[in-house]
Amino acid sequence: MVSPISVLGARVQYSSVANVQLTSETYPEIQRGDYAKLTDEDIAHFKAIVSESGVVTDADDLVFYNEDWMRKYRGMSSIVLKPKTTEQVSQIVQYCNEKKLAVVPQGGNTGLVGGSVPVFDEIVLSLANMNSVRSFDPVSGILVADAGVILEVADQYLAERGHIFPLDLGAKGSCHIGGNVATNAGGLRLLRYGSLHGTVLGLEVVLPNGKILNALSSLRKDNTGYDLKQLFIGSEGTLGVITGISILCPQRPKATNVAFLGVESYEAVQKAFVHAKAELSEILSAFEFMDNKSLKLVQDHSDLARPLEDEYPFYVLIETSGSNKDHDDAKLESFLENAMESEVVLDGVVSQDETQLKNLWMWREFIAEASGKGGGVYKYDVSVPLKDLYSLVEDVTARLNEHNLIGDSDEFPVIDSVGYGHLGDGNLHLNVAVRRYEKKVEKVLEPFVYEWISKRSGSISAEHGLGFAKKNYIGYSKDQDSIDLMKAIKSQFDPNHIMNPYKYF
Amino acid sequence: MVSPISVLGARVQYSSVANVQLTSETYPEIQRGDYAKLTDEDIAHFKAIVSESGVVTDADDLVFYNEDWMRKYRGMSSIVLKPKTTEQVSQIVQYCNEKKLAVVPQGGNTGLVGGSVPVFDEIVLSLANMNSVRSFDPVSGILVADAGVILEVADQYLAERGHIFPLDLGAKGSCHIGGNVATNAGGLRLLRYGSLHGTVLGLEVVLPNGKILNALSSLRKDNTGYDLKQLFIGSEGTLGVITGISILCPQRPKATNVAFLGVESYEAVQKAFVHAKAELSEILSAFEFMDNKSLKLVQDHSDLARPLEDEYPFYVLIETSGSNKDHDDAKLESFLENAMESEVVLDGVVSQDETQLKNLWMWREFIAEASGKGGGVYKYDVSVPLKDLYSLVEDVTARLNEHNLIGDSDEFPVIDSVGYGHLGDGNLHLNVAVRRYEKKVEKVLEPFVYEWISKRSGSISAEHGLGFAKKNYIGYSKDQDSIDLMKAIKSQFDPNHIMNPYKYF
Repeated sequence: MVSPISVLGARVQYSSVANVQLTSETYPEIQRGDYAKLTDEDIAHFKAIVSESGVVTDADDLVFYNEDWMRKYRGMSSIVLKPKTTEQVSQIVQYCNEKKLAVVPQGGNTGLVGGSVPVFDEIVLSLANMNSVRSFDPVSGILVADAGVILEVADQYLAERGHIFPLDLGAKGSCHIGGNVATNAGGLRLLRYGSLHGTVLGLEVVLPNGKILNALSSLRKDNTGYDLKQLFIGSEGTLGVITGISILCPQRPKATNVAFLGVESYEAVQKAFVHAKAELSEILSAFEFMDNKSLKLVQDHSDLARPLEDEYPFYVLIETSGSNKDHDDAKLESFLENAMESEVVLDGVVSQDETQLKNLWMWREFIAEASGKGGGVYKYDVSVPLKDLYSLVEDVTARLNEHNLIGDSDEFPVIDSVGYGHLGDGNLHLNVAVRRYEKKVEKVLEPFVYEWISKRSGSISAEHGLGFAKKNYIGYSKDQDSIDLMKAIKSQFDPNHIMNPYKYF
Repeated sequence: MVSPISVLGARVQYSSVANVQLTSETYPEIQRGDYAKLTDEDIAHFKAIVSESGVVTDADDLVFYNEDWMRKYRGMSSIVLKPKTTEQVSQIVQYCNEKKLAVVPQGGNTGLVGGSVPVFDEIVLSLANMNSVRSFDPVSGILVADAGVILEVADQYLAERGHIFPLDLGAKGSCHIGGNVATNAGGLRLLRYGSLHGTVLGLEVVLPNGKILNALSSLRKDNTGYDLKQLFIGSEGTLGVITGISILCPQRPKATNVAFLGVESYEAVQKAFVHAKAELSEILSAFEFMDNKSLKLVQDHSDLARPLEDEYPFYVLIETSGSNKDHDDAKLESFLENAMESEVVLDGVVSQDETQLKNLWMWREFIAEASGKGGGVYKYDVSVPLKDLYSLVEDVTARLNEHNLIGDSDEFPVIDSVGYGHLGDGNLHLNVAVRRYEKKVEKVLEPFVYEWISKRSGSISAEHGLGFAKKNYIGYSKDQDSIDLMKAIKSQFDPNHIMNPYKYF
């Protein structure tokens, strides 16, 4: 039994597999690009830029940077650089561009699509040593900080000043805010605070030629030219290295409530959402749902007590945040009364204190980790129109059963196929929990899942990004004209294609 | 005396000048580009695409499309095309690109920087006939509509369905939602609902080569590749023609309150903002401020009764919107009590019904129009860090006085120099109301205003855009590297530079 609480700075892993195969062995069809190989001269040059302590070459120390969080991908980089200033990043990248050395920018390395680890021998450029808050304006709520600040550290800093980071996610104890922006992380409160495309006000980016793009504006409104920073939000390190961000942080809510509800069908989940939007409106800060199979996984891998006495096919977690506890309590109470009376909700519990609130959230937040505890997990993070959202889990489960891949004993590779996610954002996480990674499972799942989503005009990657895992599947969500435009932009910014190769598209 | 209420479909103008000089005569240094000239063959071709009724060539009818809202700019286009479908737009643009005919996309033509009218003989491509709602999903609140839908029409459509358009501005009765997106309009409720970069979920765009970019996604989350649609938000028609938009619309508030407050200094305005953020938090939907000189202009050009008995140096308009009237009233009452007790606010009035609410808003919304009623207006729409925001008005007024340009009688070209705006967004509107446009006034104002802003790392165009008026000043807010990147993107998308030439940069 492990504690599912995220511990600041600690690393939670999605898989217990002992050894991670080299990505280049798992995917022998991927060829190393025509990049230069690292020389002793290069290493000496890097040491001159970031000093001895900013260069990692020890084999044991390199493991963390070469392996991804899910333990599905492993690169073989022999060097990690940890610059402390934007100027150092600029010098490194300029040198790599001149020498045609490939680079992987890396934040907290908590990505779920293998985007932040090398595939071959790319140089890892870690932002971990750029971790200072640069400024905070308490009147406007604008925070300017280095890319390498850990999300939870940034939020704690803001909490002390009555504000909140407009993004929250399970990996907050490890992930970097720069990585969040580079991957356009969505997370738990997008419903309330909106996407990073709206909240990020400015970025400082080292371009692939080493130039520093100073778009670190601290203005809420600025209509002078194309909004270049938007291109980097979600570009996963393929257009440059984000070194600083400016972001608008809302007032921190004074009161937070969490309700955990049992409902009898996915249709009832949607009805509850309409009720919540109408009655909780401006104080609704999260509307999460999960199936009973998700909860069973959490139960199997934690010592948490079930929040509701009976079992229900689906559960909903609602969070409200507001500035007046009495008002929020009254709104939530009225919502629950109406929802129970109309039988949309069958049972429910409301947190009475901070501990209960955290415990209820754990049932939702620990699903991701619990899914991998049995050996590994195939994760799909998709957007589809709300009404069809859960059908994907049903169809995939049926398909795994048809192929006799799912079952309780060790002979079956698949433990279970579960669904949960951010209903308010139309975002489903389909997790196929496995005892071991097997090609035949992958073949049953893919391209089936992608075709299923494409037919419904959905997104094959709602918030996790493309990285290495989804790079071949972008065509299921974007047409060729769009992909061609993206590639032209990539070539314009990075003509030598040194930034995060083998990824994205 | 005119009624300042915006009337649906009616055109409110910012100037009463009788004749607008041709832009090419006002700015003889601007040379016509090497574009083809319209031939009879071209006209016949366009008639084949959009039919006889979709082609405007009558001289009287052309006036509206050639002149801008402020009546400062006049082009000499001899043709306006009014396609009804995206396919028709595509055919028109493809033809223009092949023939090297320059094109100005035009929405409601309410822009304030001369961006939507031709400079020479560019073809005007009006979106006015593409004005249908395509779909609305009441569960997710996602609206998909043609670009030519008038903002107020879209909002009325949503009001009937319990939702609200996440943007509101003075020109709502005339402006198009496509134009709003093309110019990244900010408006009155950005404070609450955020920028269009966050709320727009998808766009359909006809690219300069005539291809239709289908990025009309109805998903809140989609991390599959660069977010191309972001480039078009605020591109002012220079990268393509927006033909459709998909946008996330919030639940419509059930209760709205407006308070109009008198305060004694700009410092007190800022203090009131901090109070409002802390106490009204999630229900705060607007925080507008204006100086007494702004109110005097409104008084001179309307028959509105002053909202407060006494005069104060500054006024604040606060709007709250929420889902529970009693809760909102209680929060607002408590805020006002505290603000009056601590003497941040000296006097105030709260709207008791819908009519009073609209009247209070008029004092804010009519300033823009009133500023031009005496002859014309030089408008500056800037972002600067909050603490310095109002100093710009003081410094400009002092400078106009020094040059003896401002006064009560007809010999002085300048009537007054006033300041107001969206304090919550750090966005000031500086309006220099004039009796007539004179070069010597312009010379005293520019580049002084731009240099002033540049020194404070502000934006020389917060929400109005660059258009024709500000194209030469982008360098005050963006460095050369950024401008070079923008120009490279422009050339990639529009190698023949046919889209909205002479504008932007």
